[in-house]
Amino acid sequence: MAVYTEVPDEDLRAFLSRYDLGEVISFKGITEGVENSNFFVRTTESPLILTLYEKRVREADLPFFLGLMEHLAGRGITCPLPVRTRDGEALGRLAGRPAVLVTFLDGIAVKRPSAAHCRAAGAALAKLHEAGRDFPMRRENALSISGWPPLFAAAEADADRVAPGLADRIRTELAHLGARWPRNLPSGIIHADLFTDNVFFLGEDLSGVIDFYFACTDAYAYDLAICLNAWCFEPDGSFNGTKGRAMLAGYGSVRRLEPAEIAALPTLARGSALRFMLTRLVDWLHVPPGALVRPKDPLEYDRKLAFHRRVTSAREYGWEP
Amino acid sequence: MAVYTEVPDEDLRAFLSRYDLGEVISFKGITEGVENSNFFVRTTESPLILTLYEKRVREADLPFFLGLMEHLAGRGITCPLPVRTRDGEALGRLAGRPAVLVTFLDGIAVKRPSAAHCRAAGAALAKLHEAGRDFPMRRENALSISGWPPLFAAAEADADRVAPGLADRIRTELAHLGARWPRNLPSGIIHADLFTDNVFFLGEDLSGVIDFYFACTDAYAYDLAICLNAWCFEPDGSFNGTKGRAMLAGYGSVRRLEPAEIAALPTLARGSALRFMLTRLVDWLHVPPGALVRPKDPLEYDRKLAFHRRVTSAREYGWEP
Repeated sequence: MAVYTEVPDEDLRAFLSRYDLGEVISFKGITEGVENSNFFVRTTESPLILTLYEKRVREADLPFFLGLMEHLAGRGITCPLPVRTRDGEALGRLAGRPAVLVTFLDGIAVKRPSAAHCRAAGAALAKLHEAGRDFPMRRENALSISGWPPLFAAAEADADRVAPGLADRIRTELAHLGARWPRNLPSGIIHADLFTDNVFFLGEDLSGVIDFYFACTDAYAYDLAICLNAWCFEPDGSFNGTKGRAMLAGYGSVRRLEPAEIAALPTLARGSALRFMLTRLVDWLHVPPGALVRPKDPLEYDRKLAFHRRVTSAREYGWEP
Repeated sequence: MAVYTEVPDEDLRAFLSRYDLGEVISFKGITEGVENSNFFVRTTESPLILTLYEKRVREADLPFFLGLMEHLAGRGITCPLPVRTRDGEALGRLAGRPAVLVTFLDGIAVKRPSAAHCRAAGAALAKLHEAGRDFPMRRENALSISGWPPLFAAAEADADRVAPGLADRIRTELAHLGARWPRNLPSGIIHADLFTDNVFFLGEDLSGVIDFYFACTDAYAYDLAICLNAWCFEPDGSFNGTKGRAMLAGYGSVRRLEPAEIAALPTLARGSALRFMLTRLVDWLHVPPGALVRPKDPLEYDRKLAFHRRVTSAREYGWEP
């Protein structure tokens, strides 16, 4: 949940005066987004979301994120579309922060997705991959395999305070993945954070995808592995094969997975589980005083990793040729 | 800012199915309200606010608060109106908490009110007092003079850690007010927390009053003194006489203040400043680990108290006979 920056109403009005959006009639901080401050804004013309970028988003990356949302929206992906000022600017400044207004998307995030939700999310992910093919910008994935050792270094000394043996498990995993990490898989724009809170539904129909602030250039199948982790485990830690099958089928209905991607899926699932475990672990160990966000449990991903370590083929995730 | 309780989407849908409100199409936690969890809900029929009552609101008080909002809305006060289920219930349960849906009010809270805003707020306060006259329920003000010594007892030992001499200043103030606190002033329903975040404006027109969860039965002029404290000081701590004059004139345009109320205003202003200083001080000294709300600065009210101690008549607040 996140509003890190207060926005005085007079500053908001000055900011909005640069747009053809009418007068503001409602303004409320919302708890969406962990990295940025987000606000619901209703003007006499339309409902909007205002995002102020806090320090964890690099300002130099903003043209990539905003350009990507415009690109995807132009290709039929229902994602937030940055609104431009009368001068044609999408990126402004408000309350000392880079700030953007985007269109408001209907729909609500599901906490416990059904197989139908997983199928829809898989299909949306593949559509996003296809729609991003001709996006001209690149952004390296700072949270892929080369980014994990520095994260571990920041947490290594204290990891065993969180769970006994955790540091050893991570060390073993880093060695395993370092030796087997797949290269040369089909790659392009990936969302890289398509958790359930970033997908909206109206009933079982997917109505929108949000939060592109981890999007980058990487293997498509890695993105799919992130989703298997995020959508197909039950609260008790068990993997739900029906949901996995639905997600893979949904993805496959839009984009055909290549044999190398299918073969790499167990490794990618381990890697993506490790990635979220590591970032959560670092956050867990470094909660600043006065933090407004409760850190997420890194051990959820320790348990998922334990499952993936026993997997030998994509069939165990529900893959059907 | 506040969302203390997560609401699973399936529980939300089950809750909403008891109302004639259509299907939910948007659901977002909002940062309004400090004591409760609040959500923006849009259904196919209307925008709404969902409130889950957390432990700081006594469940036994809810019929008073909900009844009061219905009463005031029925008398033309633009405040949230509790929505009833098909069975006629306003109070339900969701995610293990007492829960209420209320109508959504347009408008935005001003951070730095103008004199025109202060005049409008004063007039709205007086209208609220008038509209509450025939409300049949009573609720004692637990945060009036008899409630202050227990608050001080909870903070006394540590008060001087917050500011040197603070405990002595509070002790002196309690003795001063205890000897002079006015009794038998005109009383009835008061809002008791009409800070700027609880009043919405569209431009300079007041569009709504929210957050009735401190409302109680007490002296009308005490409510006005709370507003003078909350609206008429500048960020540098100085009292703005133009704003005070506007607020008192706005109030007086709706309800005529009696001589006893005018005479008591300096004492009431000291008392209400002490009340907010004490509750802030207790919160400041008892921030629970993992708190999602930044405590407000008690010393803001220590500085206001210093101003009030030098005041000898209501004229210094801008009162004009």
